[in-house]
Amino acid sequence: MGNCCERAGNFFGPQNNTYIRVSLPAVCFVWQIAMVILFGVFIRYDEESDEKGWHEFKRSHNITSNIENDFYFRYPSFQDVHVMIFVGFGFLMTFLKRYSFGGVGFNFLIAAFGLQWALLMQGWFHSLDPVTGKITIGIESLINADFCCAGSLIAYGALLGKVSPVQLMIVTLFGVTLFAVEEYIILDLLHCRDAGGSMVIHTFGGYYGLAISWVLYRPNLNLSKRLNGSVYHSDLFAMIGALFLWMFWPSFNSAITNHGAGQHRTVINTYLSLAACVLTTFAISSMGQKKGKLDMVHIQNASLAAGVAMGTSAEFMITPYGSIIVGFCCGIISTFGYLYVTPFLEKRLKLQDTCGIHNLHAVPGMLGGFVGAIVAAAATEEVYGKEGLVETFGLSGKFENRSMSTQGAYQAAGTCVAIAFGLVGGVCVGFILRFPLWGDPADDFCFDDEAYWELPEDEETIPPVLEYNNHMINKHQDTHESQFSLEES
Amino acid sequence: MGNCCERAGNFFGPQNNTYIRVSLPAVCFVWQIAMVILFGVFIRYDEESDEKGWHEFKRSHNITSNIENDFYFRYPSFQDVHVMIFVGFGFLMTFLKRYSFGGVGFNFLIAAFGLQWALLMQGWFHSLDPVTGKITIGIESLINADFCCAGSLIAYGALLGKVSPVQLMIVTLFGVTLFAVEEYIILDLLHCRDAGGSMVIHTFGGYYGLAISWVLYRPNLNLSKRLNGSVYHSDLFAMIGALFLWMFWPSFNSAITNHGAGQHRTVINTYLSLAACVLTTFAISSMGQKKGKLDMVHIQNASLAAGVAMGTSAEFMITPYGSIIVGFCCGIISTFGYLYVTPFLEKRLKLQDTCGIHNLHAVPGMLGGFVGAIVAAAATEEVYGKEGLVETFGLSGKFENRSMSTQGAYQAAGTCVAIAFGLVGGVCVGFILRFPLWGDPADDFCFDDEAYWELPEDEETIPPVLEYNNHMINKHQDTHESQFSLEES
Amino acid sequence: MGNCCERAGNFFGPQNNTYIRVSLPAVCFVWQIAMVILFGVFIRYDEESDEKGWHEFKRSHNITSNIENDFYFRYPSFQDVHVMIFVGFGFLMTFLKRYSFGGVGFNFLIAAFGLQWALLMQGWFHSLDPVTGKITIGIESLINADFCCAGSLIAYGALLGKVSPVQLMIVTLFGVTLFAVEEYIILDLLHCRDAGGSMVIHTFGGYYGLAISWVLYRPNLNLSKRLNGSVYHSDLFAMIGALFLWMFWPSFNSAITNHGAGQHRTVINTYLSLAACVLTTFAISSMGQKKGKLDMVHIQNASLAAGVAMGTSAEFMITPYGSIIVGFCCGIISTFGYLYVTPFLEKRLKLQDTCGIHNLHAVPGMLGGFVGAIVAAAATEEVYGKEGLVETFGLSGKFENRSMSTQGAYQAAGTCVAIAFGLVGGVCVGFILRFPLWGDPADDFCFDDEAYWELPEDEETIPPVLEYNNHMINKHQDTHESQFSLEES
Repeated sequence: MGNCCERAGNFFGPQNNTYIRVSLPAVCFVWQIAMVILFGVFIRYDEESDEKGWHEFKRSHNITSNIENDFYFRYPSFQDVHVMIFVGFGFLMTFLKRYSFGGVGFNFLIAAFGLQWALLMQGWFHSLDPVTGKITIGIESLINADFCCAGSLIAYGALLGKVSPVQLMIVTLFGVTLFAVEEYIILDLLHCRDAGGSMVIHTFGGYYGLAISWVLYRPNLNLSKRLNGSVYHSDLFAMIGALFLWMFWPSFNSAITNHGAGQHRTVINTYLSLAACVLTTFAISSMGQKKGKLDMVHIQNASLAAGVAMGTSAEFMITPYGSIIVGFCCGIISTFGYLYVTPFLEKRLKLQDTCGIHNLHAVPGMLGGFVGAIVAAAATEEVYGKEGLVETFGLSGKFENRSMSTQGAYQAAGTCVAIAFGLVGGVCVGFILRFPLWGDPADDFCFDDEAYWELPEDEETIPPVLEYNNHMINKHQDTHESQFSLEES
Repeated sequence: MGNCCERAGNFFGPQNNTYIRVSLPAVCFVWQIAMVILFGVFIRYDEESDEKGWHEFKRSHNITSNIENDFYFRYPSFQDVHVMIFVGFGFLMTFLKRYSFGGVGFNFLIAAFGLQWALLMQGWFHSLDPVTGKITIGIESLINADFCCAGSLIAYGALLGKVSPVQLMIVTLFGVTLFAVEEYIILDLLHCRDAGGSMVIHTFGGYYGLAISWVLYRPNLNLSKRLNGSVYHSDLFAMIGALFLWMFWPSFNSAITNHGAGQHRTVINTYLSLAACVLTTFAISSMGQKKGKLDMVHIQNASLAAGVAMGTSAEFMITPYGSIIVGFCCGIISTFGYLYVTPFLEKRLKLQDTCGIHNLHAVPGMLGGFVGAIVAAAATEEVYGKEGLVETFGLSGKFENRSMSTQGAYQAAGTCVAIAFGLVGGVCVGFILRFPLWGDPADDFCFDDEAYWELPEDEETIPPVLEYNNHMINKHQDTHESQFSLEES
Repeated sequence: MGNCCERAGNFFGPQNNTYIRVSLPAVCFVWQIAMVILFGVFIRYDEESDEKGWHEFKRSHNITSNIENDFYFRYPSFQDVHVMIFVGFGFLMTFLKRYSFGGVGFNFLIAAFGLQWALLMQGWFHSLDPVTGKITIGIESLINADFCCAGSLIAYGALLGKVSPVQLMIVTLFGVTLFAVEEYIILDLLHCRDAGGSMVIHTFGGYYGLAISWVLYRPNLNLSKRLNGSVYHSDLFAMIGALFLWMFWPSFNSAITNHGAGQHRTVINTYLSLAACVLTTFAISSMGQKKGKLDMVHIQNASLAAGVAMGTSAEFMITPYGSIIVGFCCGIISTFGYLYVTPFLEKRLKLQDTCGIHNLHAVPGMLGGFVGAIVAAAATEEVYGKEGLVETFGLSGKFENRSMSTQGAYQAAGTCVAIAFGLVGGVCVGFILRFPLWGDPADDFCFDDEAYWELPEDEETIPPVLEYNNHMINKHQDTHESQFSLEES
């Protein structure tokens, strides 16, 4: 059926111009060639991945064993983060009954593009060598590049099913750029700590996506309502994504924290918080439905909110029970969001948020930023030790004399910067996306893979094995006829 | 269809009272609040995850590099174990055609609850500081907590589709409690070695689940027979779970073994044993069916039995060919179990075991316990070296003078303790679950997600894209009519 | 339906003799028993996994910390490679609508067999102790065994759906044997570097599979045409495999490279190359279709070609932009291959390549071999440092005086050896497989799990919950009747 049911819009009007045969390849090639040139000019191996450099590094730092290469501290977490970006985010977005290809496929495309651009943008802002003019990269740069993509992938969650891949490339190009700037302001200028990115990744990404979606409001989106929902097996695919996100979130938050106790503690805090979040999510999900039945949307999404909210504070000494309290609250807030806030936003604020990123990223991220501010302000030398305090909050150099309450205030300010960047950036990008040349689908053609993917024939039309067995032929005749007629249509 | 087909039982009788809108949230909230309080009172970071503690630890132990933090020895295995618990066990239980949400969803709920309770229970028994009255946790505690949950998740395998989530919470609460006690007896009092938990996890969990299921026997379960089976795609989802369990089992068995050669050898042994098990599983599966066809149930389950059976002995010097022999036998025994023992148990012993945990956990676990006893009894200083023998079997302190044959006898005794705890504990918990207030489904409503989940509409009822293209309209008319009428019904 | 539709061939003719109840168990048992004996005679733990050996090793090498055990350098990569072999390759081959069980199931069987045989074969050729006559194994041996299986799994890609499991066992037995020989020639005699196996794994595996498929050409394969394609959800399952391959490819290429900067750099290069490849794959996929729609086959396969092509050169100082250029080209070449070369091969060369391994493994692998030759020839002491050059290319002992251009020439020669082994070996094995006793399916019974698997009933025939609710009965009557009649048929 898929192939023959071409929609009239393709032929008779501009309202449904999803033809991307020129624009998508053009964008891909132009950008990928630009990447080749820019990488050629700017990007080099750092001293721990360069063959000559590492030998010199070992000599100069008196290191005898290769195991002290940063690679061995970070690589397992890197691979987990990588899985979260591609399988986690990708499969979480397969929940729609007929947009699973777009969910996982476009996630793949924009993450692969975004991480290259992120290496350059983050490099220019954070590790450009003023003498050589080069950016040197190592395993930590790869993790940061994956993180940087996450901001744009979160934004994709609000836009899922309503935009073209070309628009998504633009969302990612600007998203990564804005990310690098706000990250520079928050981490370098304000000197906040945000290892798991409650502020720089989730708050920014969430509001960025919401603002774009708000500008792109489609009053007639209910024309596609029949496809804006899940089926049994698409919910199971989404559960794969949700679980990989949930399981690997301790790696996400700890991937770039300090070696040793820093990474160790971050994992413990995130693990506990996520576990607590699952219980309150199940509780509210059941309470929120008249017959007490659970809703897969909540389980897939709200149970992750604790990971988001621990992004800043997980590396601090928030204590195990503090982590559980954060998880406890996040499960409640996020599930309430799915039950009441998303419908409210759509009805009153004209904000269509396909995946509910408001409840999974924007609000928990903001909350995480403020929790981080409070925990930072409450930090004492008694708990952290003198050198622990310096190391954990990076209070050396020109920040040596910053008091902990000042640090807390800066953390809070950082959260506000992230919100502002998300909202203002998102509105601007949203207006760019409204130009009528990016190939987005018409209102009655949203949430449909038919628009951009060559779809295989439908499952129901697999014809049965040809029957030679005589006594079967008559019995099945009717069934066959109807199935073949379906296939022909 | 899903939403409109409410069963009469909901309105007219107690026999089908799956209403959990009060009980599930109540249990979740009470227990999660209890966790907050108990964690506040008892749980603290250990010296390798505490900021101040780690700096002091490094000084006092003369450690110069952060890489010697236990975190870097254990974290990759921890994440693999975490995947096994949530994706492995979860997706293995999605094989039923209409209970996949319950399989993966309730697994998620009870594992998230269980691991918190496990941290407390295991802490009280194993690492309560007598001076401060605190439990200190680190990465090894998290692995142990995941292990502890595994016992209850195994039990869930026998109960799949027949119990309510509230009942599962009770199974987990008692399961974790019993686990901590038997673990204390086996590992501390009897001083057995059981790194991968053949005894403490699999034997206990298997018999615990079987005993519960025996008490909860449903004579009329065949009323739900139409749903007690798989469909093509649900078997593929289950294969995801099975493969992640199979692949990561070397991490499971090696996660808490001794640093260095201990972890290294455990991985090799488990890897070899599992590979051999696959071949005999395929062989027996094909032989067991008249036409020689393979059965997915065997492939998904029996191929894992070797991992279970190597749980105790994988860290010993069992030799590579010894590992292969264990795997060889397990594939045969477990597949025979699925072919003949499970039907026999159901018919003669009134024991309904949905996932066949008897063949995957109970019997291979018990076998693994006895294999471990034999290998321990056969250990010599010639093979292990003097310090190797002390380290591998922990023969220091008051166990300094224990001979290897004594150790073997204690290992065998440990297996019996695990069986006893499983059977007696399971029977007691089973009777608790028979109180008619936990919301379990009636006999004709088992294996059905409809009972506890808000299900999406059925796949077949996705209406086609509205047709504007004129020449299509007439052709499709009939199809549309029938599909829309299905949707309305 | 599945069970009742027995094909006449089973009863009336040899043309469809897929009965494997004797042959498959026989092969499995004979080979597995052989493994037990051969492992007993030959395989022992190496000094880093042996309890006594490791204590002695630490003493003799003056190692104080267990973290310097090779296990901690390699284990995270090993587990990623393991996932690629079983979930990556396995699920990539689930894309066919009715051969998903065979795709993931037989992949499981032959990988589990192959890795045991690989440990022996590679051991005899690479690490047989001439004094004791034993092979010692450690974590690196396990990785190499997984690699060795990969060659045969690649070959399976060309044969998918057209051969019996017994034939696959033979393909694997000879595949692993040939692999060990060509690997010995390429790595030991020619002293090439090929850590990620562009030559030894992908080029060999690709041409091996293609040659077998060419010999087994089926002129009437279009009788099974209706099943030689995907459905919506089978493409999503395949996407799980594709993504795990894509994400973990940096681990694949770096798993056995040099400790320290070697592993670190390999990861960076592979990561960048794969990202670039995704963009050109999407571009060409869209350009290649009249309406500009994307094709899932390309996304699942061609985006992986960069990982294949970086197998040799990723550990060299190819530079970040060099990696991106390789990825850029591979996406184009591979997607073009799927669009034009595979149909051409089938039509003109009588070569049926189910998964298109020609475009994913054979050509990118060969390309990777030559890229490696060029990068090796261009290596200078200035870039690598003196000791770096020696370490990276292993230029010590009798290869001390080999110049870099000579090394490049040997690398190129190695690629040719791999092609030759693949083609000649494949043709020979192909003729062995043509004996009419291995149980392969007839031309009209290919791509059908029905041949070797006990299939569950079809999804559409799940009967609805029995209706007690009176006011529902009449409404649904028609639906029920039609569904039950379907079920009976």
